[in-house]
Amino acid sequence: MVDKDFIVKGHFCFSEGPRKLVVKENHYLVCEEGRIKGIFPQIPDQNKGMACLDYGDRLIIPGLTDLHLHGPQYVFRGIGMDQELLDWLNTWTFPEEAKYREIEYAKRAYRLFAQDLRQSATCRAVVFGTIHREATEYLMEELEAAGITAYVGKVNMDRNCPENYREETKASIEDTEMWIQNTAEKFTRVKPILTPRFIPACSDGLMEGLGRLQEKYHLPVQSHLSENKSEVQWVKELCPWAECYGAAYDRFGLFGSGGPAVMAHCVYSEENELALMKKNGTYIAHCPQSNTNLASGIAPVRRFLEMGIPTGLGTDVAGGHSSSVFRTMVEAVQVSKLRWRLAEDTLKPLTIEEAFYLGTAGGGSFFGKAGSFQEGSEAEFLVLDESRIPYMKELSVARRLERYLYLCGEKDLLHKFSGGRMIF
Amino acid sequence: MVDKDFIVKGHFCFSEGPRKLVVKENHYLVCEEGRIKGIFPQIPDQNKGMACLDYGDRLIIPGLTDLHLHGPQYVFRGIGMDQELLDWLNTWTFPEEAKYREIEYAKRAYRLFAQDLRQSATCRAVVFGTIHREATEYLMEELEAAGITAYVGKVNMDRNCPENYREETKASIEDTEMWIQNTAEKFTRVKPILTPRFIPACSDGLMEGLGRLQEKYHLPVQSHLSENKSEVQWVKELCPWAECYGAAYDRFGLFGSGGPAVMAHCVYSEENELALMKKNGTYIAHCPQSNTNLASGIAPVRRFLEMGIPTGLGTDVAGGHSSSVFRTMVEAVQVSKLRWRLAEDTLKPLTIEEAFYLGTAGGGSFFGKAGSFQEGSEAEFLVLDESRIPYMKELSVARRLERYLYLCGEKDLLHKFSGGRMIF
Repeated sequence: MVDKDFIVKGHFCFSEGPRKLVVKENHYLVCEEGRIKGIFPQIPDQNKGMACLDYGDRLIIPGLTDLHLHGPQYVFRGIGMDQELLDWLNTWTFPEEAKYREIEYAKRAYRLFAQDLRQSATCRAVVFGTIHREATEYLMEELEAAGITAYVGKVNMDRNCPENYREETKASIEDTEMWIQNTAEKFTRVKPILTPRFIPACSDGLMEGLGRLQEKYHLPVQSHLSENKSEVQWVKELCPWAECYGAAYDRFGLFGSGGPAVMAHCVYSEENELALMKKNGTYIAHCPQSNTNLASGIAPVRRFLEMGIPTGLGTDVAGGHSSSVFRTMVEAVQVSKLRWRLAEDTLKPLTIEEAFYLGTAGGGSFFGKAGSFQEGSEAEFLVLDESRIPYMKELSVARRLERYLYLCGEKDLLHKFSGGRMIF
Repeated sequence: MVDKDFIVKGHFCFSEGPRKLVVKENHYLVCEEGRIKGIFPQIPDQNKGMACLDYGDRLIIPGLTDLHLHGPQYVFRGIGMDQELLDWLNTWTFPEEAKYREIEYAKRAYRLFAQDLRQSATCRAVVFGTIHREATEYLMEELEAAGITAYVGKVNMDRNCPENYREETKASIEDTEMWIQNTAEKFTRVKPILTPRFIPACSDGLMEGLGRLQEKYHLPVQSHLSENKSEVQWVKELCPWAECYGAAYDRFGLFGSGGPAVMAHCVYSEENELALMKKNGTYIAHCPQSNTNLASGIAPVRRFLEMGIPTGLGTDVAGGHSSSVFRTMVEAVQVSKLRWRLAEDTLKPLTIEEAFYLGTAGGGSFFGKAGSFQEGSEAEFLVLDESRIPYMKELSVARRLERYLYLCGEKDLLHKFSGGRMIF
């Protein structure tokens, strides 16, 4: 695809809100300069000379957003899944992440990770690296080359972690500032994001320093929140002054008040924490597979939606073993049904339309205009190929989409356009 | 594979009970006349002339057993997943199954189903058909040709179902007897199984008739049990004389007392029902994906194992959307974690080894010697190919198996041997 002006024809599905799935059959998506002009029933007169990619009866949907995953955990996905969060971190995660000090190891592993994301349906991602500046810069390079639009974070952690995978507070701040200066303008599609690992691993001094960097550089923030019962209890002990776990971030301006923030999990967020997120516009990355694998629990996503807290989906590789946001959508529906059945029958299960919204427009909006074919947004979409799965009767486009999400996935992508260009 | 005498070399993994995963690295599986002689560290002297298939560093596991799935629901998998059991049956299942009256429709659909099973890791299956004798016989033919060892049932139902998908009681019994006579000796690998749909759809008269057929022909039985709260309540109203749902089958000798029986789901089975199953040796087909999709709940599999009730896994296509028993294993672990977290923290989550047992030896034993490389059992195994998933360090065979179950699946099968021969 040399030209950045083109037209795409097919059946378009996208969300205009959690409950509004829009279907436009046999329409034309017009892209000018790699950006979306609109979706039209006919080719507009002034665009009649442009090249048209006619995908016939195929479904076309926005690129997906993965709001939470860990680059350095990719290579040990699907191993050690019989532990809870804190044990799993000490047994598997920290020893593995410590290896990224060696840049050659990091390069090999991050190449595999970026290659997977390139082939996936994910167009945008918010990614944890490790504490290592050099490895994290390399991760950013690889994601840029893979055509992923991403926020990537050098992790900060200075307590409650192994000696070989811990920073000194002052060095952590200095290193982070150098990394910000190196990378803030280096890439087109990949930007730095402040990344305190989670409160148990970050001293007040470290959080203060990160708060200062936030003020100075106006960066977004990512972290973990209220994932696991033992973790929530631990934070209460570590920060007796905080009225809730989220308040321990908020005190340092790292909870959405000073700039966009996304918090992964929120399985155990109570009313006051959610009210603070609502007030600050803090995003939630819902990670159903990870919350299941680590036996953390099930987040009340219906409540997030009802309160109007901005929410998207995260695969949380490697708490989640799959890097597929398609699969995450289905699992968001699935765990919401179990939560409704086993825990709180006043919160209705999510529908597949709502889960589709979360994985497209819901998470995409963390990046601004993304995830729902808005005018002026980048040309970023997926052409789906369901031909591997036979059917016995004609289905509506919405039913075909449901079926694709349940039965198909990354291997059934015909084309991926990301950042205004065809990735494959 | 012309010869039925052969040797296979590789790393063998199999279960000798729920908690005993056996690993034999660089061993030789010797098959004589299509049956397993044993697994040896060296080729026994008397077998030294036999052909040896050397799979090197590959993992080799027993064929998988799917203890519960519906052939006629295959073609609408992944559609209409936003309903509970009873609504879903009326909206999607009964109208679709009614179409199998037309044999040409049934043939087209069952060919797709059998083709999928052939390519899957499933070697043995217990399958629901429809009420139609002709279509069910065709389903049996197709499964035989696909190399699947199966029990297949012509469904019986004479009440609480649509007029175009309901039998008259007497005709149902007569038709079933004719079908048994036609099929009992017709196939090598596929046999009939009595299949009352579930108590709400079967009158006492029908159940009596099936009980008589059971006595006369000594067939096994499959049905559904305690899947959904509304269904359990309904059975209480329909059979006030039964002390539990299971007792409504037991009264007619269709609950394991008269011959092997397998009951799908058992999400809400209480102590007396489980005690009856234990006494009768009745099998449970645990169907985690279906129980999740239909918001039924989570079955207490740990309790089944502790009580010693024979248990295996079912995909329950199309309450389950995936026909993969590999995936069912992982989901059995996953939902057990959520059940532990949300409902009953005295029942520990299943381990991946236990789930592997359920999908191999646990379900396989319903067929006699199957699912764990027992001496004298049929040569029935899968050669796994993990090469699609890169790794950064050497892993033990047990960890490689865990990783395969989480990250790989049907598409990563190198070879499938079933019924003593290579299927692919």
